[in-house]
Amino acid sequence: MELRIKKVNISSGGPLIVIIHKEDARKLDLKTLDRVKLKIGRSSIVTAVDVAKKDKIKEGYIGLFTEVFESLNVKENEKIIVELEPKPLSLQYIKKKLDKQILSKHEIDEIIKDIISNKLTEIEMTYFVSACYINGLTLYESSYLTESILESGSRLKLDKYPILDKHSIGGVGGNRTTPIVVSIVAAAGFTIPKTSTRSITSVSGTADTVEVFAPVTHSKERIEHIVKKTNACMVWGGALELASADDKLIKIERPLSLDPEGILLASILAKKAAVGATHVIIDIPIGKGTKIEEKEKARRLERKFKQLGKLLGMEVKVVLTNGSQPIGNGIGPALEARDVLLVLQNKGVLDLKKKSIFLAGNLLKLAGVKNGVKKAQEILEKGLAYKKFKEIIKEQGGDPEIQPNQIKISNVKYNVRAKNSGVVGFIDNKLLTRIAKIAGSPDDKSAGIYLNVHLKDKVKKNDILFIIYAENKKKMDYALNLLDREAISINQKV
Amino acid sequence: MELRIKKVNISSGGPLIVIIHKEDARKLDLKTLDRVKLKIGRSSIVTAVDVAKKDKIKEGYIGLFTEVFESLNVKENEKIIVELEPKPLSLQYIKKKLDKQILSKHEIDEIIKDIISNKLTEIEMTYFVSACYINGLTLYESSYLTESILESGSRLKLDKYPILDKHSIGGVGGNRTTPIVVSIVAAAGFTIPKTSTRSITSVSGTADTVEVFAPVTHSKERIEHIVKKTNACMVWGGALELASADDKLIKIERPLSLDPEGILLASILAKKAAVGATHVIIDIPIGKGTKIEEKEKARRLERKFKQLGKLLGMEVKVVLTNGSQPIGNGIGPALEARDVLLVLQNKGVLDLKKKSIFLAGNLLKLAGVKNGVKKAQEILEKGLAYKKFKEIIKEQGGDPEIQPNQIKISNVKYNVRAKNSGVVGFIDNKLLTRIAKIAGSPDDKSAGIYLNVHLKDKVKKNDILFIIYAENKKKMDYALNLLDREAISINQKV
Repeated sequence: MELRIKKVNISSGGPLIVIIHKEDARKLDLKTLDRVKLKIGRSSIVTAVDVAKKDKIKEGYIGLFTEVFESLNVKENEKIIVELEPKPLSLQYIKKKLDKQILSKHEIDEIIKDIISNKLTEIEMTYFVSACYINGLTLYESSYLTESILESGSRLKLDKYPILDKHSIGGVGGNRTTPIVVSIVAAAGFTIPKTSTRSITSVSGTADTVEVFAPVTHSKERIEHIVKKTNACMVWGGALELASADDKLIKIERPLSLDPEGILLASILAKKAAVGATHVIIDIPIGKGTKIEEKEKARRLERKFKQLGKLLGMEVKVVLTNGSQPIGNGIGPALEARDVLLVLQNKGVLDLKKKSIFLAGNLLKLAGVKNGVKKAQEILEKGLAYKKFKEIIKEQGGDPEIQPNQIKISNVKYNVRAKNSGVVGFIDNKLLTRIAKIAGSPDDKSAGIYLNVHLKDKVKKNDILFIIYAENKKKMDYALNLLDREAISINQKV
Repeated sequence: MELRIKKVNISSGGPLIVIIHKEDARKLDLKTLDRVKLKIGRSSIVTAVDVAKKDKIKEGYIGLFTEVFESLNVKENEKIIVELEPKPLSLQYIKKKLDKQILSKHEIDEIIKDIISNKLTEIEMTYFVSACYINGLTLYESSYLTESILESGSRLKLDKYPILDKHSIGGVGGNRTTPIVVSIVAAAGFTIPKTSTRSITSVSGTADTVEVFAPVTHSKERIEHIVKKTNACMVWGGALELASADDKLIKIERPLSLDPEGILLASILAKKAAVGATHVIIDIPIGKGTKIEEKEKARRLERKFKQLGKLLGMEVKVVLTNGSQPIGNGIGPALEARDVLLVLQNKGVLDLKKKSIFLAGNLLKLAGVKNGVKKAQEILEKGLAYKKFKEIIKEQGGDPEIQPNQIKISNVKYNVRAKNSGVVGFIDNKLLTRIAKIAGSPDDKSAGIYLNVHLKDKVKKNDILFIIYAENKKKMDYALNLLDREAISINQKV
């Protein structure tokens, strides 16, 4: 059937959707959410159909949502051929998983392929996530899923052995160990091609923080070159294009804060496999408000990470760390970057220093270095890590000589003070993160929070607990609205 | 926060959605699919939020989808107050069900309430359907779900005992036993207030067919009056407003053709409970292309219908019938109505007559009538059922004296003939249904299909197998396109 194109100025935010008139739907025997193939010239695309209510689309017309309109490169009123398209096979496989059956490599490949190419609707992807959540994935299914995600992107070609990597499962403010760990490990002579994410929902991703020092968006070839020159990199992982399936699944998981283990495992290890990692350390912070709150669940994940790593040819070590408060003093790109630089220059921020040495040391041990932790500490304290850091920053196109006091922090600031004297009893990770986001982080790198105290510190009434740095006064006002709840609680001495 | 209203001329097809600018989302600390409360004057409404891509909505504005715009009764550029709304509690209960826990009456109530008031997104409803599908519902959960659906609508007040009812689980063409069963049972002196659906995806609903004789849309009070006068009614169930939760769940179930048993049971028995039914017969046709294809599944449903009925104070009898071919000769409202009238006048259509007597007879037996089937046959053959039918039609405002040859059938017709001689071996229920729909049924009541043969009939080459009646020539052309597959297959004699 031929229909005339009408542009619908709305983005569906992913799934490809078109709208047709009830009569045309009848002719094509279509129901809402059935699929059609659109053909024009040599282009064709498969989309889901919505049947227009109340004559929003006239008979003979087809309304294209922004994504469809743009991907076909068409004009309004052009004619386009519309045909009923059979349901994708991946739906049968999703049904299989709902029915507690085990999926093959091919079946998982089809599902991931269809998710990436926007062939599945939100409802259909939700069935997949539900099935993975309730029925779980076997170890082999998880490894197939890892490979499917991996094959959907591209890989670094490095021709090195071993290749080291680290990952931290989120939920803790600050905690910007990555640039320090990478610098220590590379200074020890190991290859560590670290790719990181930008913030999606968090206050800052590692890539956002590193960007304070140097560009992080590089092509695959450029990343390979940086690693060859310096043994390391600290770049945004987008160039490897693994994020597509991941991002879509995250959107589905969010409303119920689900995080099916099998998908979590696959999503993390696919990113490690994409850089060719052979030895990987995974940091799971445990505490109120972190992603994994219970030790038991962390232990189960540890076991599965190791088993899955083995199937994928990776040695994986998992460490459970204390996630009860932010690590470092800064939250937000610039404030975190300043902490990183201070640690590399041996000028303080001891909690961040300690955790970085612990992670780097354990990663070195995993790669066969005796007394790894001691070695890591030496490398950091002798300034070798800082030297390596400057090499990497220079190679990525940044200024290696920048000093902590040259990092720009916003001058719209507000001191939050203690209402009484006592001891710091609780730090609300989630609330601090929200405040920093509303203040403008990470889009404004100079916004965020500086913590003057940590757990168990003694404070006097009117001492500064933390400082809010906002992008502008308006954002500060919004951020201050959140202070009716206590972000940092003081236990009064009895 | 105050934002200015912008109208987005798109219907989301159910869930309430608004779009806001990225900056405003940040100020409110909102992510895509979070919820906001909109307040203007004394009205307020809770909707899901989409964050605008590519500046479709400017900072300071809020885009309202059609459903939201209309329900608030606002104008463009008016200011509206927008606040972050906590997630509904029902999400926690859905999560509980995903985690294999059993839900309480209150929890199921909350979920259904939020589904009906459009507070849950498609993703969230899909999680509920998945959880019901995979983890199942206990008998008590099904009864709570029935009650929740029931309480979301209204009930007939009839003050009678017993009250009889029937239900047929679909998938078979024709099969229009309801008007005949209702007439027989009411003629036998029993109360049978039958509510039916209009077609959603099928070629004709019972309500569509009865509408050929008389109006079927009546208020609750009018329905009660009709039943008081005639012992019966044959009306559209919309007046009882039970369909809302049902329709929404059906939309979610369709892409994977899921039909979680617990939801199916609740959805059917809620409609029976709404008319106060005490004795119910349920017909499950089994055969290729019907809704329940396997006998084993039908037997399990039978057991559960009985148990759940008991909890709800209903006696339920389930009969498994042959669903391998259409029942009666007509498919489509007018053609089915003609069959019904012919049976009531004892002028043929023997398969429809036989099945109607079987169902009515078993229902009478269930209500304590000895030799129920014999009694049903007598009532039909003595013309008592026809007399009762005319009473009901008259009371509903139709013409009781209409004759079979006065029922208008379309004159755009096409004879589909046998390509060879032999015996009718297979009738493709699904394909016939599609042809009838594309020909214009049920919106055009005069369109549909007339079957000249049934399974095992002998035919000669060029005999008419069935006749297509289309709304107009264009629709006939579309319908004929489907004839490349054989709707009725002839096995040649060897």
